[in-house]
Amino acid sequence: MLGVCYYPEHWPESQWAIDAQNMRKLGISYVRIGEFAWSRLEPKHGTFTFEWLDRAIDVLHAAGLKIVLGTPTATPPKWLMDEHPEIAPYDADGKVRGFGSRRHYSFSSEIWWKESARIVETIAKRYGTHPGIDGWQTDNEYGCHDTTVSWGPEDLKAFRQWLRMRYQTTDQLNEAWGAVFWSMEFNSFDEVELPARTVTEPNPAQRLDFWRFSSDQVAAYDKMQVDIIRKHSPGRWITHNFMGFVNDFDHFKVTDNLDLASWDSYPIGFVEKFPFTEEERNRWAETSHPDIAPFHHDLYRGVGRGRFWVMEQQPGPVNWAPWNPVPKPGMVRLWSWEALAHGAEVVSYFRWRQAPFAQEQMHAGLNLPGLDEWSVGGLEAHAVAGELAKLGALPDSSTAPVALVYDYASYWAAKIQPQGRDFRYEELVFRWYEAARRLGLDVDFVRPGADLSAYKLVLVPCQMQVDEASLAALRNTDALVLYGPRSGSRDGKFNIPENLPPGPLAPLTGTRQTQVASLRPGLSDAVSGEVSGAAIRWREYLQTTAKVVASFQNGDPALTENGGHHYIACWPDQALLSSTLGLLAKKAGLETIELPEHIRIRRRGNLTFAFNYGSEDWTVPVSGSFLLGGSVVKAQDLAVWA
Amino acid sequence: MLGVCYYPEHWPESQWAIDAQNMRKLGISYVRIGEFAWSRLEPKHGTFTFEWLDRAIDVLHAAGLKIVLGTPTATPPKWLMDEHPEIAPYDADGKVRGFGSRRHYSFSSEIWWKESARIVETIAKRYGTHPGIDGWQTDNEYGCHDTTVSWGPEDLKAFRQWLRMRYQTTDQLNEAWGAVFWSMEFNSFDEVELPARTVTEPNPAQRLDFWRFSSDQVAAYDKMQVDIIRKHSPGRWITHNFMGFVNDFDHFKVTDNLDLASWDSYPIGFVEKFPFTEEERNRWAETSHPDIAPFHHDLYRGVGRGRFWVMEQQPGPVNWAPWNPVPKPGMVRLWSWEALAHGAEVVSYFRWRQAPFAQEQMHAGLNLPGLDEWSVGGLEAHAVAGELAKLGALPDSSTAPVALVYDYASYWAAKIQPQGRDFRYEELVFRWYEAARRLGLDVDFVRPGADLSAYKLVLVPCQMQVDEASLAALRNTDALVLYGPRSGSRDGKFNIPENLPPGPLAPLTGTRQTQVASLRPGLSDAVSGEVSGAAIRWREYLQTTAKVVASFQNGDPALTENGGHHYIACWPDQALLSSTLGLLAKKAGLETIELPEHIRIRRRGNLTFAFNYGSEDWTVPVSGSFLLGGSVVKAQDLAVWA
Amino acid sequence: MLGVCYYPEHWPESQWAIDAQNMRKLGISYVRIGEFAWSRLEPKHGTFTFEWLDRAIDVLHAAGLKIVLGTPTATPPKWLMDEHPEIAPYDADGKVRGFGSRRHYSFSSEIWWKESARIVETIAKRYGTHPGIDGWQTDNEYGCHDTTVSWGPEDLKAFRQWLRMRYQTTDQLNEAWGAVFWSMEFNSFDEVELPARTVTEPNPAQRLDFWRFSSDQVAAYDKMQVDIIRKHSPGRWITHNFMGFVNDFDHFKVTDNLDLASWDSYPIGFVEKFPFTEEERNRWAETSHPDIAPFHHDLYRGVGRGRFWVMEQQPGPVNWAPWNPVPKPGMVRLWSWEALAHGAEVVSYFRWRQAPFAQEQMHAGLNLPGLDEWSVGGLEAHAVAGELAKLGALPDSSTAPVALVYDYASYWAAKIQPQGRDFRYEELVFRWYEAARRLGLDVDFVRPGADLSAYKLVLVPCQMQVDEASLAALRNTDALVLYGPRSGSRDGKFNIPENLPPGPLAPLTGTRQTQVASLRPGLSDAVSGEVSGAAIRWREYLQTTAKVVASFQNGDPALTENGGHHYIACWPDQALLSSTLGLLAKKAGLETIELPEHIRIRRRGNLTFAFNYGSEDWTVPVSGSFLLGGSVVKAQDLAVWA
Repeated sequence: MLGVCYYPEHWPESQWAIDAQNMRKLGISYVRIGEFAWSRLEPKHGTFTFEWLDRAIDVLHAAGLKIVLGTPTATPPKWLMDEHPEIAPYDADGKVRGFGSRRHYSFSSEIWWKESARIVETIAKRYGTHPGIDGWQTDNEYGCHDTTVSWGPEDLKAFRQWLRMRYQTTDQLNEAWGAVFWSMEFNSFDEVELPARTVTEPNPAQRLDFWRFSSDQVAAYDKMQVDIIRKHSPGRWITHNFMGFVNDFDHFKVTDNLDLASWDSYPIGFVEKFPFTEEERNRWAETSHPDIAPFHHDLYRGVGRGRFWVMEQQPGPVNWAPWNPVPKPGMVRLWSWEALAHGAEVVSYFRWRQAPFAQEQMHAGLNLPGLDEWSVGGLEAHAVAGELAKLGALPDSSTAPVALVYDYASYWAAKIQPQGRDFRYEELVFRWYEAARRLGLDVDFVRPGADLSAYKLVLVPCQMQVDEASLAALRNTDALVLYGPRSGSRDGKFNIPENLPPGPLAPLTGTRQTQVASLRPGLSDAVSGEVSGAAIRWREYLQTTAKVVASFQNGDPALTENGGHHYIACWPDQALLSSTLGLLAKKAGLETIELPEHIRIRRRGNLTFAFNYGSEDWTVPVSGSFLLGGSVVKAQDLAVWA
Repeated sequence: MLGVCYYPEHWPESQWAIDAQNMRKLGISYVRIGEFAWSRLEPKHGTFTFEWLDRAIDVLHAAGLKIVLGTPTATPPKWLMDEHPEIAPYDADGKVRGFGSRRHYSFSSEIWWKESARIVETIAKRYGTHPGIDGWQTDNEYGCHDTTVSWGPEDLKAFRQWLRMRYQTTDQLNEAWGAVFWSMEFNSFDEVELPARTVTEPNPAQRLDFWRFSSDQVAAYDKMQVDIIRKHSPGRWITHNFMGFVNDFDHFKVTDNLDLASWDSYPIGFVEKFPFTEEERNRWAETSHPDIAPFHHDLYRGVGRGRFWVMEQQPGPVNWAPWNPVPKPGMVRLWSWEALAHGAEVVSYFRWRQAPFAQEQMHAGLNLPGLDEWSVGGLEAHAVAGELAKLGALPDSSTAPVALVYDYASYWAAKIQPQGRDFRYEELVFRWYEAARRLGLDVDFVRPGADLSAYKLVLVPCQMQVDEASLAALRNTDALVLYGPRSGSRDGKFNIPENLPPGPLAPLTGTRQTQVASLRPGLSDAVSGEVSGAAIRWREYLQTTAKVVASFQNGDPALTENGGHHYIACWPDQALLSSTLGLLAKKAGLETIELPEHIRIRRRGNLTFAFNYGSEDWTVPVSGSFLLGGSVVKAQDLAVWA
Repeated sequence: MLGVCYYPEHWPESQWAIDAQNMRKLGISYVRIGEFAWSRLEPKHGTFTFEWLDRAIDVLHAAGLKIVLGTPTATPPKWLMDEHPEIAPYDADGKVRGFGSRRHYSFSSEIWWKESARIVETIAKRYGTHPGIDGWQTDNEYGCHDTTVSWGPEDLKAFRQWLRMRYQTTDQLNEAWGAVFWSMEFNSFDEVELPARTVTEPNPAQRLDFWRFSSDQVAAYDKMQVDIIRKHSPGRWITHNFMGFVNDFDHFKVTDNLDLASWDSYPIGFVEKFPFTEEERNRWAETSHPDIAPFHHDLYRGVGRGRFWVMEQQPGPVNWAPWNPVPKPGMVRLWSWEALAHGAEVVSYFRWRQAPFAQEQMHAGLNLPGLDEWSVGGLEAHAVAGELAKLGALPDSSTAPVALVYDYASYWAAKIQPQGRDFRYEELVFRWYEAARRLGLDVDFVRPGADLSAYKLVLVPCQMQVDEASLAALRNTDALVLYGPRSGSRDGKFNIPENLPPGPLAPLTGTRQTQVASLRPGLSDAVSGEVSGAAIRWREYLQTTAKVVASFQNGDPALTENGGHHYIACWPDQALLSSTLGLLAKKAGLETIELPEHIRIRRRGNLTFAFNYGSEDWTVPVSGSFLLGGSVVKAQDLAVWA
């Protein structure tokens, strides 16, 4: 199904019915509204002007559109910020991040919670049982613009309270943080400061706790909104629209309170956000890299316990990346189908019509700026709608053969302690995912501790802290498991484990790590054996009782195997990564295919989808019954066969 | 005529007469003094010590030198800053930019206006009718060191007042800014904040208004000084010395109140300031790029309504660029003659003698540090003086065949909304100017809305907002016109025009723009047709009823023509730019010559000047009667012929 | 002798005796303790808990270890910072650098001096005469993490006082700073501000004075601690452990109060800190550049008036560089022997056991994290201990034939006024040192004004200010002298000398400098004559009565000689530097040998040491009696012969 994001408050009321009709004509079923409209709903404290929204909802509903209503908390209005300046977030330098754009609040402001609850309750009460309301979106893109973590007095107060709950006594806090180091011991929780503005690096355990706290605040804040909505809007689903490549809080935990996950897919904008090489950025500038959107689809399918939407789909050039090219013809259609192939329930475009004013005036919509005229993206969305109607209901997504353990806490830990400047969790995981999909494998993202019994192959690119549940899941699976660098290298207090890394994993892997080298760009260490390639960025020194599958130049173990548990003691370059995953897939009995750089495939039920991100044709190497396209998949085109 | 900047307060009084005599001996006619001397004129509040300046002026006047007296407002003394800390400017982070160098004031401080008026009036009264005073300079280099815009409480107060005047009601403000977007609507002008320290980008219309306001403040402040001087110093001219590559305020508007423009020419220092490639920077490090100084000469001749000086001419290495090479032998002479060729009334060197102390001790003068001994630059200036005397009065400058519309507001708009990181207005304009001059064309800079009837060819590299007057001037000229990217792409409220870009220009160009791509370095789109080359950085998607002169690879129009109005839908690379200007010049009946990279020519009346910035000889391709040099122009040399 | 840094407070008391025994077993004689233990010694103001340290000292002493006791002032505890927030330092932006790591104090805080004196006196009284205490270390790594200079209100107050003492009157201050420039004249010392947060660059003489002041504060603070310790701990030596590549204060002056110098040697970490090329960084990533440690050994031997320790020796990978590789096998042993070859009395490893917690958990120790198990570094240190025992007492270091004048004030001056972005004093000196050692020469570092009569060749890479004592020493030596760029270019007030540079050196060199060019990367000026190569970065224009030994392309003098005094008028590239030092060494009668990039030699008494930093064997070109190794020195190995 298709959807669209719409802002009735941006257009004359006379336009609403026309827009609604045109949405239906284009093939839209869902419309998301309301998430930035606070100043129009409550222009002054306590003065509510909901009548326009009543009418907008009625008009959209009357046209047969299902409405997703957003809570407007991402944009507290100026009168509220002036009444309560303590709502504003602070940056790490201690400077206020003020009014004038969006997300200008701290999750730790008490008055902000009250005000949020007040506006959410007002809206939920008014619209909770309106027949046009199909579901809800809380807030908008938590964490976007680095807003998960705030560094102000309210945050400090809440952090101290969080620490009190966690540690009970300062003795326990001091012990957990190793505070004896550099005389950092505290006599009172009120002595604790935020881990910023220090002379040199602050304590890493403190930093991790502050990150955990900040992540918890997001989840708690969202739950507050969810609880209010559930109370007043029975039978409706609730989601949040997550932003791509935001890892500052644990999306699994936030979604525990939600019915489904959704995310905002800007495949081209993200090319500039992810640490690709310049060559990659140039190559994929006008199509996106073929794993960016799928990576997130699979992640949010996992986050959403099988259910996810694309809440905002890029329909043309955007405004916010360093460079904003026009997508190549066909890409809007391709991305839409790709989301569906990966299990999206709805693909909702952002936005119906390009706004000729304000911050996003250079952001394309399905219609040209200010006009009733479909853009290139609008035309492609219309084509998707037609094809969807032709195909009918898509089969359910089934469990993939490969699981990838995605761990937000390891992202935090690697940021806190990279040890080598280019050790980036998100990049490591992305490269593992890319390598698996270049072999034609479907991948499920799972959270640490999730049941792994359904999989043939489990990838753990880097899980620094392995708790009891994670350990049990890994012990109990029959899948082959591949652990990446730093896995098990820290205990829950961010200490090196007493038995050295991989700590609790040692009985499974049969390894012990005695030294670690981070390697500057230009340095590498060749690996050979059953697999081959090189270590880059990171190289561990292992002692092992396991089978040595491949070795470094000096004979040290590089890849080990112990009863199905494989450990790779480095950041593998592409060759090593590819040959390692190939070997394991083969051992796991998984069929692989070496796809070109620009081709990806994905199954959904009995259907197979192929997507061509490149400029050369690709011939489907199997025979099938084609529902869309044919055996030759052209540039920026796709094929679906059964 | 030649001049020099002199600081009697830096030298013993016994030296003054010697210096004055040596100035005359070198060939100097004008001497600028006084512009940083406040602490010597008023060491404590209300305690004036003008006697030394009385004597200095008398000594210089007695030697036959004409004096340009500067107001000392660029350096408020410490006692004043301590009395009124609110004078200090703020940076965008909200930090005070304090005492200890220069330009430490905000244009919006009320007390600063009072104090400025007080010192200017005191000086103007004392020296206004002194026979030695030929003219005045207000302040020094407005905007240098990013001092146009200040971000403090005084600025906010003045900005709110400016908005009240502009919009009358917050409804009109909200509508103009599209404030409904992201719930930014204001109930009172006192709710408005400065567009800084926001979580993500602030509203672009707000930013543009703040830039307009900041520019207006400069003009108003300068007018305040000018009005005082005119009252007390009848018959004297007044100028301000602008700094190169400063675009933060509208120089045309400031100069509306002045008699002539002047600018400070540091050709080598600017090589590091302008976004040249590293290859260009290395090539021109010791001569300057051959268009830097001419670009500014032509700009300030336009700004000054035909009249301009070089108030400060680099006489050797300077101190303030990242690297400060010694100019190649001959360059000081070449730059001096070049300024004259472009119409400068006076070339005034900065400074008479290198100061052995303080911030500019590494800045060359016409004399060696602390000594009565001419530097290399001094010797070259002396040579110019001799040649000037030999040639006699130069003919008047006449109107060039080519007009270039220079628009400060488009610089601001492109800074606010680059959309592609390397879309820089100043660079685009510079490259268009360079391409015209490589074809041997003389160029006049004109402001938007200026009469264009005298020109054969009008270049509009990028004028984002086209007001009524501009539109009328463009409609009424018979010249061929070439519009560059983004022209007409915004209305006065910084919105996309209702008819899409180029908005009001559409009837002239016959085009409509539906999409825009910014292209990262490495991406380009080839153009072919009557002209050829490639689009880099920026590429527009046009629909057109005009003639398509050249097309992009996919057949889209790249250059269109509609009744003499040409629109180029991209940032052209050098090849495309050169062939386009060549085609238009030919169609306009202008004779062109393809000059080597290092050669430029310029006419003044019946004289033609040629300048050689390179290391290879150049042979003048026409015959003429040589007043300076001959038909072979050697490296770092020049020729003048009739 | 070998030592180790130990933190009894990090381990259970039951571990202490085991550790002490294992230290003896490994071959350790000295143990440094206590320097970060304040919060364990005084957990609340006035509550002392020294009993644990009493027992730790007794245990270590009982095992036969000699104890170096550190004062804990590098880590004031939280209760103290909360009592007296004014202790904290400020950064140049005016932001507090707060609690949470180390070195969070300003040297100018009065209360901090009192508190420092109190804790130092308490410790010195308690342990001053303990038979286990062999010596003392004050504080830890002054200046590390940019902590020499602080920019807060306490610093401003102390700076004003320092200026009052230095200048007596503001007239003298104004004259010294050239404050007339830009109206910066002061009527009172209380008007002076710190040279920061100005609109453009502050006055350079003011900046230099602030740096002198900041350096003086370090020396005075250290002397305060030293005086207290001497009073209570008669017969013990006192040192401070300096950090490599810290030049913000004058180490000679601080050490005037100490018995010996010591420094913290992290050869691999420093590869990323020093401005090497990327090629060099890759080449030396896993061994260190072969001059980094020796440079510091020779510097601190000079600073310590012949006596120095390595207080902290890197024993494996560290945690604080952008990348932290594992040293190649053998390097820990090589570095240890190299320190001894250069005259170190003790090589003390940091640290005994890797801490599994807190900021330095990725910093290797002689034992694995948390374990009683020697690391690779531990094993290599043990090997050194055995070899040392075999060789017995090493001969005394003797005076080297070459002196290098090292001038902290010139580092400050070049930072304040680089004039070319890459004019870095520390880099210039390092390259001169490297060139000398590539010729097989031993080098002594001397401070400006030191007696030079014992040397054959004196190198003055850059001494900007030459005072009377320096001039006398240079005049009185029979050595050949080579002066580098900018020598003598400033007087004591940071002015250009009245006779132009090299100012007071002019009678010795017979030169006068009239212009200076800084050359951007890519520009150079070829030099030929008796030596050859090129000028890069910096090129001076000289007039000279001296012999011209080599010239620039245009014939200008590049290297001059006047009665043994040579002046090189540029930043020489490697070829020019090498041929110049080669020529001078030859003229001075010094034997040289052209060593490969990866080989260095060093004499100590009658012994010669050779060190191989590369991966290729090196054959010793002389015959000798080998005490360690043999005539073929393998990769990462060494040889010692008599």
